[in-house]
Amino acid sequence: MSKIVYITRRETFNAAHRLFRPELSDDENLTLFGKCSNPLWHGHNYTLYVTVKGEVNPSTGLLINLKDLSKLIREEVIEKIDHKNMNLEVDFMQGKLASTENLAIAIWDVLHRKLQEKFPHVQLHSIKLHETENNIVEYFGE
Amino acid sequence: MSKIVYITRRETFNAAHRLFRPELSDDENLTLFGKCSNPLWHGHNYTLYVTVKGEVNPSTGLLINLKDLSKLIREEVIEKIDHKNMNLEVDFMQGKLASTENLAIAIWDVLHRKLQEKFPHVQLHSIKLHETENNIVEYFGE
Amino acid sequence: MSKIVYITRRETFNAAHRLFRPELSDDENLTLFGKCSNPLWHGHNYTLYVTVKGEVNPSTGLLINLKDLSKLIREEVIEKIDHKNMNLEVDFMQGKLASTENLAIAIWDVLHRKLQEKFPHVQLHSIKLHETENNIVEYFGE
Amino acid sequence: MSKIVYITRRETFNAAHRLFRPELSDDENLTLFGKCSNPLWHGHNYTLYVTVKGEVNPSTGLLINLKDLSKLIREEVIEKIDHKNMNLEVDFMQGKLASTENLAIAIWDVLHRKLQEKFPHVQLHSIKLHETENNIVEYFGE
Amino acid sequence: MSKIVYITRRETFNAAHRLFRPELSDDENLTLFGKCSNPLWHGHNYTLYVTVKGEVNPSTGLLINLKDLSKLIREEVIEKIDHKNMNLEVDFMQGKLASTENLAIAIWDVLHRKLQEKFPHVQLHSIKLHETENNIVEYFGE
Amino acid sequence: MSKIVYITRRETFNAAHRLFRPELSDDENLTLFGKCSNPLWHGHNYTLYVTVKGEVNPSTGLLINLKDLSKLIREEVIEKIDHKNMNLEVDFMQGKLASTENLAIAIWDVLHRKLQEKFPHVQLHSIKLHETENNIVEYFGE
Repeated sequence: MSKIVYITRRETFNAAHRLFRPELSDDENLTLFGKCSNPLWHGHNYTLYVTVKGEVNPSTGLLINLKDLSKLIREEVIEKIDHKNMNLEVDFMQGKLASTENLAIAIWDVLHRKLQEKFPHVQLHSIKLHETENNIVEYFGE
Repeated sequence: MSKIVYITRRETFNAAHRLFRPELSDDENLTLFGKCSNPLWHGHNYTLYVTVKGEVNPSTGLLINLKDLSKLIREEVIEKIDHKNMNLEVDFMQGKLASTENLAIAIWDVLHRKLQEKFPHVQLHSIKLHETENNIVEYFGE
Repeated sequence: MSKIVYITRRETFNAAHRLFRPELSDDENLTLFGKCSNPLWHGHNYTLYVTVKGEVNPSTGLLINLKDLSKLIREEVIEKIDHKNMNLEVDFMQGKLASTENLAIAIWDVLHRKLQEKFPHVQLHSIKLHETENNIVEYFGE
Repeated sequence: MSKIVYITRRETFNAAHRLFRPELSDDENLTLFGKCSNPLWHGHNYTLYVTVKGEVNPSTGLLINLKDLSKLIREEVIEKIDHKNMNLEVDFMQGKLASTENLAIAIWDVLHRKLQEKFPHVQLHSIKLHETENNIVEYFGE
Repeated sequence: MSKIVYITRRETFNAAHRLFRPELSDDENLTLFGKCSNPLWHGHNYTLYVTVKGEVNPSTGLLINLKDLSKLIREEVIEKIDHKNMNLEVDFMQGKLASTENLAIAIWDVLHRKLQEKFPHVQLHSIKLHETENNIVEYFGE
Repeated sequence: MSKIVYITRRETFNAAHRLFRPELSDDENLTLFGKCSNPLWHGHNYTLYVTVKGEVNPSTGLLINLKDLSKLIREEVIEKIDHKNMNLEVDFMQGKLASTENLAIAIWDVLHRKLQEKFPHVQLHSIKLHETENNIVEYFGE
């Protein structure tokens, strides 16, 4: 009888970003977003938790080889954003406000598509992103 | 199309407390609650995780400004309990057994009401309270 | 009116293990499981989070005394696996591939049965197991 | 040839306390110590790191069996202070201001004497005490 | 008899930065500094540990009120660098390569001067700076 | 004027091991080493902190490129011990009791020699090894 397990892989990256709406002045952005709108950027160490779910394969005891999951996350997300400017250099954030909310959703969209392609027996369950030790965003694809 | 995200804010406080039922003797309380019933009190550093959910605002990329959420939690919870005696001085714990279970429920009740008043587009999802690194209580308003 | 809370107890243990299928050669196991199939074993410090749910007892303010929950986990799980070889010495892992997925499911089965026996008012909600800081498995009994 | 190593054992406890000088009024204590002088007490989870140094025993590869060190710390410190009121119930804090500085020094004095008695080949190097994640005191016996 | 204790205050901030020498091309900086030289910046959450040492004041049991130490660090360091671009906006980093080594030394210089002014009974012992969970710099004023 | 900084790189690995003296019986080893002498092995996730010291290079602002330090630690230590049996497979532990004390000293010896060869401007300061969250060994080459 099949058993459903949830597997989480933690990865880390850092990036510069800025919260702002391009049609507003720096002062208006400051009012709206506070110091996160600094036009000269600021940055964070992000901790990313990717959780997938599915049935354990009885012949390996595994849901998915975590090496494979880690490789996918690194190729599709970490290498594109680590040590980068999230607003200016990251393809999956172009045209979006660089909030942690939007970043979590964008990472979901990237990984959801790639997981379906490469590991169709596995279902993406959640993207959890720690921006700081105090601020955490989670997205379940709803 | 709207997207539902979950945002968690971590805050910390410390407090003294005691587990006991006033109608019992100290010995009976000791039998029931163990060393947590010490009549001369003990205390903890609590870590509080408040999770809210809702739709991302497309014009800001945010669910809620975390500064605002932090301010609300600090005013309604932290300032009332930090460095206090939970049994004797905290209005939202009066008449209740000072367990972590009851504390999590009481914090839910306070924040649920205040969030509805001030940030009606946001829904309280859970209150998670770490009493120690080994003991954790979570309440979802059920 | 009853309130449902979730209580989590954290416990730690360490163990040696090896991922392999006995009908395969060491080389075939290496291809399938990578360095986790090392025939001379490797090991981990595991962090176990056991979450139970249920109604708070109004006369104690508690769902369950965490001392009792901790004692049950230690007797039924920790003492049997701590400082042991998971493949060779742990009764509840006999005949199973020693993956973290299977270990989480096996711990669920042990604790689910014992909790029903000893604390029938409490329901097992999840077993979460950190194999390393980057690899986490969670099982909900589904 | 002998090698000097440093071994650290981490233990945790919690306690209620209050910073105050008995000859001052509550208001004067409030001015001097802030909210830490609350007459109704507050409390913390403390993390204690005890570091000892000495030569590795060539026939065991160990400086000291950590089970023995842990047992000593538990008997002489943890059992006397855990879930207690530091000002009123802890023998080694009687007549002292219950600051983290004084607590670290008092724990040094207790453990220094007992280590000399029981493990004379080992030298106490430092007592480090985390009162919160932000406040840390260390004492080296100087 | 006087006792020397070491007190550490932890504070956090985040900032954007870039490692580069202005007289070199972007390619030359890339060769020298790797991805840390990204001309479009990147950033980190920094954790700062400031350790001071001195004699415990027998009439308060304290070396220094941690509220005062925290206030000094916040005013002199955190408010100037938090959510800022370290290369462009932080007075104490002007004209310096924005490495974690130089940042730790610069923070030492700022705090050493201010502590001598305001708390001459206290001596700065070390500045420890975590740039990520894997990279840590410590400076002792030598 | 030159400034001395201390740089720490954190790396992680896991391994199986056993504490025992080959000339003793299993029972005698059990008496001497407790459950750490389990003949069927157990294992840990180790966290390794390598600290080096030296003068900051004024033309780069760095003591040493942490990528280089990390690469050296991985090649000389991590790749040889990760997912291995410390007693049977790790060249720098052959003929030694597999205690954390001896492991820290052996890692010092390996890295001290290699750092002198490849980065002579940098001095090894300490090897700190966390065997569990409660047990830590540090070695300074004395």
